[in-house]
Amino acid sequence: MKIIVIGGTGTIGTAVVKELSPRHEVVVIGHSKGDIKCDISSEESIKAMYDQLGSFDALISTAGSLAFADFASFTYDKFMVGIKSKLMGQVNLVTHGLKRINDNGSFTLTSGILSHEPVVTCVSASMVNSAVEGFVRGAAIELPRGVRINCVSPTILEETQPKFPDLFRGFKPVSSSDVALAYSRSVEGRQTGRVYPVWY
Amino acid sequence: MKIIVIGGTGTIGTAVVKELSPRHEVVVIGHSKGDIKCDISSEESIKAMYDQLGSFDALISTAGSLAFADFASFTYDKFMVGIKSKLMGQVNLVTHGLKRINDNGSFTLTSGILSHEPVVTCVSASMVNSAVEGFVRGAAIELPRGVRINCVSPTILEETQPKFPDLFRGFKPVSSSDVALAYSRSVEGRQTGRVYPVWY
Repeated sequence: MKIIVIGGTGTIGTAVVKELSPRHEVVVIGHSKGDIKCDISSEESIKAMYDQLGSFDALISTAGSLAFADFASFTYDKFMVGIKSKLMGQVNLVTHGLKRINDNGSFTLTSGILSHEPVVTCVSASMVNSAVEGFVRGAAIELPRGVRINCVSPTILEETQPKFPDLFRGFKPVSSSDVALAYSRSVEGRQTGRVYPVWY
Repeated sequence: MKIIVIGGTGTIGTAVVKELSPRHEVVVIGHSKGDIKCDISSEESIKAMYDQLGSFDALISTAGSLAFADFASFTYDKFMVGIKSKLMGQVNLVTHGLKRINDNGSFTLTSGILSHEPVVTCVSASMVNSAVEGFVRGAAIELPRGVRINCVSPTILEETQPKFPDLFRGFKPVSSSDVALAYSRSVEGRQTGRVYPVWY
């Protein structure tokens, strides 16, 4: 398969590329590095990326920014950071990619544990991650030509937890290589409309 | 209690007002009618409403617009209708209302069955309703002074289903008076961070 990995130079993306590249043609897309550059918060940047990519079999998105702040200081503009990037960026990857994806291809997006297990300062992540999951459920029943869509919901990564020692107390971190397996299950399995949680 | 009902002139809102007004002081807010008018898609309109309202004990929102279309014709602008109104409109009601709400008060928002049971042409509803539920989970753990937040997730109403005979096949409609009971449970109970589904 020809598999596009958006955010393929990040922590999760690198692990996904490592998992899939031995058996697939993988194209790495990054914000500032990679085979092709793309800023998913810009619809024009997404269109320009697809013009360079041509057709493909699977797209994995591990990209998207979010703002973090105490709830009391969360403003409309802070909420819009995640809405424009992690939510509508991933939505736009699907709506524009639909014209390019091969029959029976798949989109795999990224949500995250905060959709269901909130922590302080992360209300936007809870909102946006839940929105991504709802989008996946809604889109799955309408995609044509056997095209599938799922998302992976990782918990905090072993690689990331040391940066936030107090925020994720009691959360069991997972390795990015374990998270990469969930993307493999989405791309190489047959389900659609699924959220793959990588946490318990 | 002094209870504000946003969308209080709509189908659900009218039933909520009928349920709660025999035992509470209820203020009805509508887009074009009601005790005070408010367009929740405008942050300025929300601020102006709160300036007129003063303090209160509970706010119920049954308002919010969404766009509907086949997935293939869903554009960024169509997604933004629901994001600006049903999602960020309800979020702004909470962030701005937090300064006015009394200790141990409550916010009760509205999502809907489509967050988990999608139907065609309603991908934005699946996305936005899920986002509202995620916001409620995230906000609940950070609200100060005993303030609570929940949302009600109604299925299709008996009053509405005849307008969409084919879209909701197999869905059991409920009366708006039954849906109103869930808002009562949220306002008059003690839970927080809850989604109250009114469907099975």
